[in-house]
Amino acid sequence: MSETLLSSRNLAFELYEVLDAEGLTQRERFAEHNRETFDAAISTARSIAEKYFAPHNRKNDENEPRYENGQAILIPEVKPAVDAFLEAGFLNAARSFEAGGMQLPTLLSQACFAHFQSANAASTSYPFLTMGAANLIESFGTEEQKQRFLQPMIDGRFFGTMALTEPHAGSSLSDIRTRAEPAADGSYRLKGNKIFISGGDHSLSENIVHMVLAKLPDAPAGVKGISLFIVPKFLVNEDGSLGARNDVLLAGLFHKMGWRGTTSTALNFGDNGNCVGYLVGKPHQGLSCMFQMMNEARIGVGMGAVMLGYAGYLYSLDYARERPQGRLPDSKDPSTTPVAIIQHADIKRMLLTQKAYVEGAFDLGLYAARLFDDTTTLATDTERKQAHELLDLLTPIVKSWPSEFCLKANELAIQILGGHGYTREYPVEQYYRDNRLNPIHEGTHGIQSLDLLGRKLAQNGGAGLKQLIRLIAETGARAQKYPSLTALREPLEQLVNRLQSVTIGLLTDLAQGKVNSSLANSALYLKVFGHTVIGWRWLEQAIRAEEGLAKDDAADAAFYKGKLQAARYFLTWEVPSCHHELAILEARDDTCLGMQDGWF
Amino acid sequence: MSETLLSSRNLAFELYEVLDAEGLTQRERFAEHNRETFDAAISTARSIAEKYFAPHNRKNDENEPRYENGQAILIPEVKPAVDAFLEAGFLNAARSFEAGGMQLPTLLSQACFAHFQSANAASTSYPFLTMGAANLIESFGTEEQKQRFLQPMIDGRFFGTMALTEPHAGSSLSDIRTRAEPAADGSYRLKGNKIFISGGDHSLSENIVHMVLAKLPDAPAGVKGISLFIVPKFLVNEDGSLGARNDVLLAGLFHKMGWRGTTSTALNFGDNGNCVGYLVGKPHQGLSCMFQMMNEARIGVGMGAVMLGYAGYLYSLDYARERPQGRLPDSKDPSTTPVAIIQHADIKRMLLTQKAYVEGAFDLGLYAARLFDDTTTLATDTERKQAHELLDLLTPIVKSWPSEFCLKANELAIQILGGHGYTREYPVEQYYRDNRLNPIHEGTHGIQSLDLLGRKLAQNGGAGLKQLIRLIAETGARAQKYPSLTALREPLEQLVNRLQSVTIGLLTDLAQGKVNSSLANSALYLKVFGHTVIGWRWLEQAIRAEEGLAKDDAADAAFYKGKLQAARYFLTWEVPSCHHELAILEARDDTCLGMQDGWF
Repeated sequence: MSETLLSSRNLAFELYEVLDAEGLTQRERFAEHNRETFDAAISTARSIAEKYFAPHNRKNDENEPRYENGQAILIPEVKPAVDAFLEAGFLNAARSFEAGGMQLPTLLSQACFAHFQSANAASTSYPFLTMGAANLIESFGTEEQKQRFLQPMIDGRFFGTMALTEPHAGSSLSDIRTRAEPAADGSYRLKGNKIFISGGDHSLSENIVHMVLAKLPDAPAGVKGISLFIVPKFLVNEDGSLGARNDVLLAGLFHKMGWRGTTSTALNFGDNGNCVGYLVGKPHQGLSCMFQMMNEARIGVGMGAVMLGYAGYLYSLDYARERPQGRLPDSKDPSTTPVAIIQHADIKRMLLTQKAYVEGAFDLGLYAARLFDDTTTLATDTERKQAHELLDLLTPIVKSWPSEFCLKANELAIQILGGHGYTREYPVEQYYRDNRLNPIHEGTHGIQSLDLLGRKLAQNGGAGLKQLIRLIAETGARAQKYPSLTALREPLEQLVNRLQSVTIGLLTDLAQGKVNSSLANSALYLKVFGHTVIGWRWLEQAIRAEEGLAKDDAADAAFYKGKLQAARYFLTWEVPSCHHELAILEARDDTCLGMQDGWF
Repeated sequence: MSETLLSSRNLAFELYEVLDAEGLTQRERFAEHNRETFDAAISTARSIAEKYFAPHNRKNDENEPRYENGQAILIPEVKPAVDAFLEAGFLNAARSFEAGGMQLPTLLSQACFAHFQSANAASTSYPFLTMGAANLIESFGTEEQKQRFLQPMIDGRFFGTMALTEPHAGSSLSDIRTRAEPAADGSYRLKGNKIFISGGDHSLSENIVHMVLAKLPDAPAGVKGISLFIVPKFLVNEDGSLGARNDVLLAGLFHKMGWRGTTSTALNFGDNGNCVGYLVGKPHQGLSCMFQMMNEARIGVGMGAVMLGYAGYLYSLDYARERPQGRLPDSKDPSTTPVAIIQHADIKRMLLTQKAYVEGAFDLGLYAARLFDDTTTLATDTERKQAHELLDLLTPIVKSWPSEFCLKANELAIQILGGHGYTREYPVEQYYRDNRLNPIHEGTHGIQSLDLLGRKLAQNGGAGLKQLIRLIAETGARAQKYPSLTALREPLEQLVNRLQSVTIGLLTDLAQGKVNSSLANSALYLKVFGHTVIGWRWLEQAIRAEEGLAKDDAADAAFYKGKLQAARYFLTWEVPSCHHELAILEARDDTCLGMQDGWF
């Protein structure tokens, strides 16, 4: 049977041939693990994803949560799926043994999670959001908060959300209006409205722990005056039992284009003046707490986009192999048998493009997850700091590149299925609709581009960028061993050289205060930077494929040849396209910036 | 109030400043018309579209047709809308006075129709399909067929469909299996199954006239053995009254990603051995009949894609003007008032891109409609033939370019609205879903690219291509009058020169029988050719804008400046990107063609 969630062979290639997952077991934290425990976790994830998550993916779409008597009602299939996920321990896969986790590397935890993201993006969101909220409390909460709120989340009894966005402010968090007034008992009373809160209501868990951004009475204006609060749906007594319903009202549900199984809620905090919250971390430091957790969340979002692309790619590949239609251009004799459409050049193009996008982004997501492991388990402070700097730099790409190009992959999957792809009788159109959320949430595409160009590049004196350039050069040097890779390596080198020069120019302009003009075309910069990173990862994959081919294992030769062809596609069909955007960036072209409201 | 369907100012610009609609009134057929009658028709179209079509666009989406007792049930709002359309005469807008029409130029008929396409793609499909079917009978039917089937269609009593696609064959019409056996009375008995038949059942009209492709018993294999038949839902007696139900069964409905208000049906012909059909045109000439009508139909499909893009552009423009959020990068002081998001550079980019795509494609669609008028009303055979050759060449672009780039515009409209754009509480996500059909139906993108490169270019000794090159050069020559247009003109000239050289190379290869390799990258060729054509049309619009600016009418200056900025965007941000694809085409790169099934 064809695989539907991801290619196991490709995952093994990533883990054991590209990213050296086994090397991680040399580190103290992962010393109990080995390839067998890794593979067992992956195998369990695949089984549960196939058995409990995939079967109701379409049903989630067709039966979005209903608003009834102030509550969100989900289809009954979600809870058993989430329960199976919890029971198998995936919520705490990366958490330490003593905290009740599997103490797996994030690389492995993400590899396991990818199966669920591919099977059912919507149902997977509930544990995903819970992990994010739990990590926030784990990093910044007091011991009491951990005992009262984190432990029940680890135990799977409480779920979590992230409540940032407000109706009037959107991405502009500096303008949020939710207020938090100190109460006599050391807690706070919150008042405000939040929208687009995913997982904001459901009955999958005993309680829901909202992580809410709000402003204290003495808060400075802007982002430096934002604080972080725990606001539970039900209050929690000192003994851990549930208390009264908190003053958090489900004001309504949003009805989305896709990803319909995840409730998107409007929440009112403190309509009755009695919404209890608890400050997490220091006053006015809420956004920086959020940002410190953002890397992991954004890897997760990026991988979510990858996996929707992956699911569509595999489905359309299978379809193209099974569907006979038409003949090749040089053999139009209508009495001959039609060929499978995978034989048509344009179908090959659409499949190879998907493969290059999906497997390139998959590699990057897992690379970032491994880098996250480096930030916590490398031997020295310096090494961990370096890993952090590189991960910080890559995070906008890890989040945004799959959101754009694996969405494009979904569009191609629809096209391969033709009229069938456009119907809801086949799954590919849902993958597109689900994936369309990813360039919007967790920082829109535009926000990511400003984060990269306006913040991340220059951070720590450009330390992350210097590392990246060095790593790309190292990969290039290793590629020189293979003459067959020259044609793949050279376009990347040309791109990196020019990108460096453009980057220096833009950073110089920024330093000189030419802020608006330097940032105006940041979306183009994001594309070029992303293609550079993915191009690098494809060159790395190509080297590993050459190494694999050299082993002369006939059974694997086709796999490695496919890798080389996809690398060739990306490095010769995609990478050189970036010179167009670089020319615009070099010229500081103001065509878009100069457009006036009244001229539209 | 902002306009929601299209910009009236832009339509007037196209008709009266770019395409010289008034010049058409010098021709005998249109002598009764003048700018006032044109504008009256447009004004009526806008009123009816706003009053009857737009209000139920979302309801169409939310309540797709249901299958009940062998029938398709639509929401009740469709019929009054279609009736108002019929009553105002738009079904026959281009038909002659004596045939009951308005005898408008196709340019005007298309301009009127665009309002309906923007307001409600799904409800508009029913009259659109009827027009196509009626035109087929008008061109190829016998007098008796015209009396029995065409006249009731003109009268709005019968609707029509096009029934081409079969389950096993998809785009490969040469493999259709529907058979037509001659009966003693000169009619035929059909047997076969068709899928994706839009408008295949409904109760908007007394009868439905299916135009069905099928094979006669003595048919040669392949496309040269396809014949065209009229197959009515109800038989029609000699006196024009309805007879018995024909043996055409509604087997089921498809459930689509978008465009949901239009039934997409599976039809079974002759399940009971008694499906009566009437041959239209000569035996085995069915496909060539279809193709002769294709130009008009494909202009319509292309314009449909444009108008969905247009509706999304106008909505997101309005939203961007009204929505305050964030501050410009150089003024981050959080105590200042947030700006409307139209002030942000990246929002300007997304709006200007939409404007360039939508207004460029709108111009091309109307240009093609005017060319269609030239094919019927120019003075000499030679001139009409020339117009036909150019229109034939442009048709794949008119159909496919908007299907790709106005769909991209819809994606940008969603992005501008952010989280709101992703909800069904706003219209933009539906525009995307509706528009996603356009690269699939009426010849997929891949089919269009093969039609262009493999057929249209070399037709009539390349006469159409030579005309196009000459027309682009003429526009370039006129642009030289405006030094400000030099930067816009030069990228187009560079592109055209290189495209010509690539084209000659590919046609030479084709002539030498290197068919598979020449056509392998036809999708890239289609993009480059399309960008060349749209670039030309934008240069033409830029010249007209300069002429308009020279009139020094302050009220219009902003409009013309916007045109110039959009032209600048397209010619300097989009056109040069094509050199990347041209390099791949020049190299006859076989990266995709060389990919093997087993390597995926």
